[in-house]
Amino acid sequence: MSSKNTVTVVINGKITRLTGYESEEYLQKVSAYLSNKMKEFSDQRAYSHMTSDMRSQMLALNIADDYFKAKTQADLYDEELRRKEEEIMELRQEIADLEAKYDAVLTANYNEQYSDGQKKRR
Amino acid sequence: MSSKNTVTVVINGKITRLTGYESEEYLQKVSAYLSNKMKEFSDQRAYSHMTSDMRSQMLALNIADDYFKAKTQADLYDEELRRKEEEIMELRQEIADLEAKYDAVLTANYNEQYSDGQKKRR
Repeated sequence: MSSKNTVTVVINGKITRLTGYESEEYLQKVSAYLSNKMKEFSDQRAYSHMTSDMRSQMLALNIADDYFKAKTQADLYDEELRRKEEEIMELRQEIADLEAKYDAVLTANYNEQYSDGQKKRR
Repeated sequence: MSSKNTVTVVINGKITRLTGYESEEYLQKVSAYLSNKMKEFSDQRAYSHMTSDMRSQMLALNIADDYFKAKTQADLYDEELRRKEEEIMELRQEIADLEAKYDAVLTANYNEQYSDGQKKRR
C-alpha cells in the first residue's frame, strides 16, 4: 500500500492541506477542478445572494452531475466493449472456418494430383 | 429542447426543491447519492467536530474523487475501444485476404479442369 501524502493546495483562493493516499498530482488536479467550478458559480449573479448552505449544495449537485455523466459514459463504453469483444470472437471463428475450407481444397487438390500420378505410373 | 422540471427531493433529511432540464428520475438519483455520501460522513466520529465549511469541502472533494475515477475509467474504456476497433479492421482484412486466396484456388481448379476437358475433346 502506498503511504499517505499531505499536500498544500489552493481551493477557491483558500490555502488548504489535503491528506490522502492519492498522488500530489492527483490532489492538485482535483483542487484545480473544484476551484474552477467555484469560479464559474461566483461569476453568476444569483450566487452572491445565496447562503453558504445553498452554495455548498449547488456545488455538490453540480459535481455529482459531472460524476453521473462520466459514469454513464463509462457504462456505455463498457457495453460497447462487450459488443466489440463478441464481434472479435465471431470474426476469429470466421477466419478459422475459412482456413479450414482453404486447407480442405488444398488437400483435395493434392490427393487428386497424387492419384493422377499413380494412374499414369500404372 | 426538453422543458425544465422542478422536483422535490430529500437530501440528507432536508426537503429541497431542485430545478433542471434533467428528468425527475435523474434528479432523485443524484439526491439519493448525495444523501448516502452525507450519511457515510456523519457516521465518522471526526465529522461532528468539523465546521460547516470543512464538511462542505470534504463532501465536494469526495464527489470530485468519484467523478475523476469514473472519468479515468471512461477514458480507459475509450482507449480500449479504439484498440478493439483496430483489431476488428485487421480481422476483416484477414478475412478478405483469405476469401481472395480461396477464390484463387477455386478458379485455378476450374481452369485446370476446363483445359483438361478441352485436351480430351481434341
